[in-house]
Amino acid sequence: MTKTAAGNFFEDFRLGQVLEHATPRTVTEGDQALYLALTGSRFALQSSDEFARALGLRRAPIDDLLAFHVVFGKTVPDISLNAVANLGYAAGVFRTLLYPGDTVTARSEVIGLKENANRQTGIVYVRSTGLNQRGETVVEYVRWVMVKKRNPEAEVPPPHVPSLPEAVEPDALVVPDGIRFDRFDRKLSGSPYAYDDYEIGERIDHRDGMTLEEAEHAMATRLYQNTARVHFDAWEQRESRFGRRLVYGGHVISLARALSFNGLGNAVKVAAINGGRHAAPFFAGDTLYAWSEIIGKAPAGNDVGALRLRTIATKDRPCADFPREDPAVVLELDYWVLVPR
Amino acid sequence: MTKTAAGNFFEDFRLGQVLEHATPRTVTEGDQALYLALTGSRFALQSSDEFARALGLRRAPIDDLLAFHVVFGKTVPDISLNAVANLGYAAGVFRTLLYPGDTVTARSEVIGLKENANRQTGIVYVRSTGLNQRGETVVEYVRWVMVKKRNPEAEVPPPHVPSLPEAVEPDALVVPDGIRFDRFDRKLSGSPYAYDDYEIGERIDHRDGMTLEEAEHAMATRLYQNTARVHFDAWEQRESRFGRRLVYGGHVISLARALSFNGLGNAVKVAAINGGRHAAPFFAGDTLYAWSEIIGKAPAGNDVGALRLRTIATKDRPCADFPREDPAVVLELDYWVLVPR
Amino acid sequence: MTKTAAGNFFEDFRLGQVLEHATPRTVTEGDQALYLALTGSRFALQSSDEFARALGLRRAPIDDLLAFHVVFGKTVPDISLNAVANLGYAAGVFRTLLYPGDTVTARSEVIGLKENANRQTGIVYVRSTGLNQRGETVVEYVRWVMVKKRNPEAEVPPPHVPSLPEAVEPDALVVPDGIRFDRFDRKLSGSPYAYDDYEIGERIDHRDGMTLEEAEHAMATRLYQNTARVHFDAWEQRESRFGRRLVYGGHVISLARALSFNGLGNAVKVAAINGGRHAAPFFAGDTLYAWSEIIGKAPAGNDVGALRLRTIATKDRPCADFPREDPAVVLELDYWVLVPR
Repeated sequence: MTKTAAGNFFEDFRLGQVLEHATPRTVTEGDQALYLALTGSRFALQSSDEFARALGLRRAPIDDLLAFHVVFGKTVPDISLNAVANLGYAAGVFRTLLYPGDTVTARSEVIGLKENANRQTGIVYVRSTGLNQRGETVVEYVRWVMVKKRNPEAEVPPPHVPSLPEAVEPDALVVPDGIRFDRFDRKLSGSPYAYDDYEIGERIDHRDGMTLEEAEHAMATRLYQNTARVHFDAWEQRESRFGRRLVYGGHVISLARALSFNGLGNAVKVAAINGGRHAAPFFAGDTLYAWSEIIGKAPAGNDVGALRLRTIATKDRPCADFPREDPAVVLELDYWVLVPR
Repeated sequence: MTKTAAGNFFEDFRLGQVLEHATPRTVTEGDQALYLALTGSRFALQSSDEFARALGLRRAPIDDLLAFHVVFGKTVPDISLNAVANLGYAAGVFRTLLYPGDTVTARSEVIGLKENANRQTGIVYVRSTGLNQRGETVVEYVRWVMVKKRNPEAEVPPPHVPSLPEAVEPDALVVPDGIRFDRFDRKLSGSPYAYDDYEIGERIDHRDGMTLEEAEHAMATRLYQNTARVHFDAWEQRESRFGRRLVYGGHVISLARALSFNGLGNAVKVAAINGGRHAAPFFAGDTLYAWSEIIGKAPAGNDVGALRLRTIATKDRPCADFPREDPAVVLELDYWVLVPR
Repeated sequence: MTKTAAGNFFEDFRLGQVLEHATPRTVTEGDQALYLALTGSRFALQSSDEFARALGLRRAPIDDLLAFHVVFGKTVPDISLNAVANLGYAAGVFRTLLYPGDTVTARSEVIGLKENANRQTGIVYVRSTGLNQRGETVVEYVRWVMVKKRNPEAEVPPPHVPSLPEAVEPDALVVPDGIRFDRFDRKLSGSPYAYDDYEIGERIDHRDGMTLEEAEHAMATRLYQNTARVHFDAWEQRESRFGRRLVYGGHVISLARALSFNGLGNAVKVAAINGGRHAAPFFAGDTLYAWSEIIGKAPAGNDVGALRLRTIATKDRPCADFPREDPAVVLELDYWVLVPR
């Protein structure tokens, strides 16, 4: 019998099942530098130890989305190696900050299962949790994914679709312990705008474009130890629907987040992911643009507030006119960010 | 009103104006590793903590040009986002060494302004300074750049062109405190040649060639948090004069410097940049070659001397015959390096 | 006379000659992150400080092959700058673990010389040793390489071909001091299989494929400060036999090793390299696949054993049918790995 892992198929999952994912990962300054080189992120909190110390932290934390991708990557061999499509995210909350030197592990609980009518595939809902070496939760989120059945005839449990919040409640957002947003320097951060300067309904064109190369997304995705073959194996992908490698959707999220600096420079921390949809595939050679709308606001302390954003990213199409129903849209992301007041 | 930064236009600058640039940046071992992977640098001082310690330093410092690029990158959103052309550098001096863990900030003073006759553009002269977290100057330099006017009709101040030195005086060169070049090991460093072995007028073909990829210059330029769109947005650049992304000129300087190891292996530290000219654009797919001429010499201590170099880099043309007036030339750089005696 | 290094030619080598190679290199977390991003390695020991500490080490060591490549890279300017072909490896043994912060130096002894009949080239055999800053051997190996003569007429010493072992004896394998494989967590490591689960003759298709880009192999090879021009200079290579840049064979070994995780996830340490053959060149754009056969077993302690593997890598051809005599084969590597019992 082969020792090569083939991943789980739909009929292998059970409601309530907990999967402890492999490959603990110490995240370092090296990862942070690569993340910056691959995305162009410029948020001051993650860029400067001194800036972070001025706010009361011990040093610059790891970028929230880098932490997310490392956790996500660990779940792939168990959850989505046989996935047809990544369908959605919900209830993503960033808790304890991750610092260089911390080690991430991850586990997932199966919280929903629903076979598709054609019996070829089914939808698996998991709540995944990334932990640091002290067992503190760094990030947790729900994801659902369409997974192939090994055997279409296999019997599966009755359908169970979990009830998921439309968005994370403002009360559930976590402001890192001991952080002092009143000491936030808006000269150094690169943006003069504070929480009160943003209004619900406001739309911001992030304007800059970023063209992606095969080497870039492949390096990022390997950095996250994400093993989904569609990102790496161009030979196999020749026979696929698109005829080429797909870019990991999470890297598109990171690029959109980095572009959002232009207009949202003080949104230094992602607090939650309410939902996300990859509307179309993104490929090497494509240029990403993005715009955001403020769709919610909530104070998160005396000196900090949360903005709920809908960021829409397009390919090969600037966003000056805020496109939403448009074939160029590749990503729609609904999330909370923290901004000093 | 949009919160997206559009950068300053020529009429926004005032003589004597000081711009504090955004995004403080802690430079780490991760940045140094990436710099090495992207340039192929082999100078022993920056490559080995042990080598640096033998000379009396506490560990290997960050490469001088990496420090320069990080500072330069910070100036872009304020100085050159609306630039048409980067015209020149002068009076660049490297002062305090930058080490992994240090945090860089930058500011620029406007020292000259001159509108062009067509009133569409003007030349802005700035003296930019990069500082570490203790406020010590890491590097300072003058740069002048042609910047668009937002409104050609806008009134601007009377022209003022600063007087700039043809080169940094040898007396102004800084040898790092406490460094002991008498302990320099020329076996380990990879070159037998010391200061006295080089003669004014001597020409050195560095011989090796380096082909550049889009992913490489884009990663380098993002690492420096340089936001100039011409390096990143291939979609927008389709309509430009060259029809494609331009490589950041500073990365070409770094590649030429790395190539110069072959013949100048003991020139372990850049001490000053006297001037530089990007004679032609460089693109992904091009192969860079370089040669240098020794155009000046000056002792810089009992055990160290400074060589003034003119390094000329070409594209797709080896430099065995020392080309200078040649369409293949892309860079001419005049700078001082420190070499053990 | 030029100061540009031209490398040694066949007639420059002498039996018994010892070459101290240049450019000491401190290996850091930055290098390890890049290695992971460039190869996709997932072995738990090198990925997690906590995993390494649980086994009694002080932190995650540097990947064995990264250490090997750094040593190999140092030898290039002295040994193989004028090489026509890299012919083989033997007697490679990994000794002291390399950790982030350690500094590598390298030296080689010429142990064999044999001019070819055409007098244009000759074979140079060297035993290369990589040392840490305490002078402890990190890795040593024999390599032989065909080197051009500067002058075909030059007189050379009588031929001497060293006797080389077909494989490293199990007794000569080094288990790192103080490592406790009994504490190895096969849930975290990502594979349930221990030493006793593998049988001689067993074949494992690693299944995954990895497509390589120019930027990736060039970054890896520069990271190792390997200066062989064939990997970097596309302009010069246009006139070569293949018309393009060759991928450094060591990077192909690293990719094959990373792919081998799928089926050999607990083979966390390379203990020795018995031999290797690059059967065909590998180029950017090619997709690498690999399979392995267990060709030897030996206990290496109470809680750890050594597996002798023959890993075969192909390009643009999956390995489900275990190809060996096949034009798609690019690498055949014979090596020992340590696996918990």
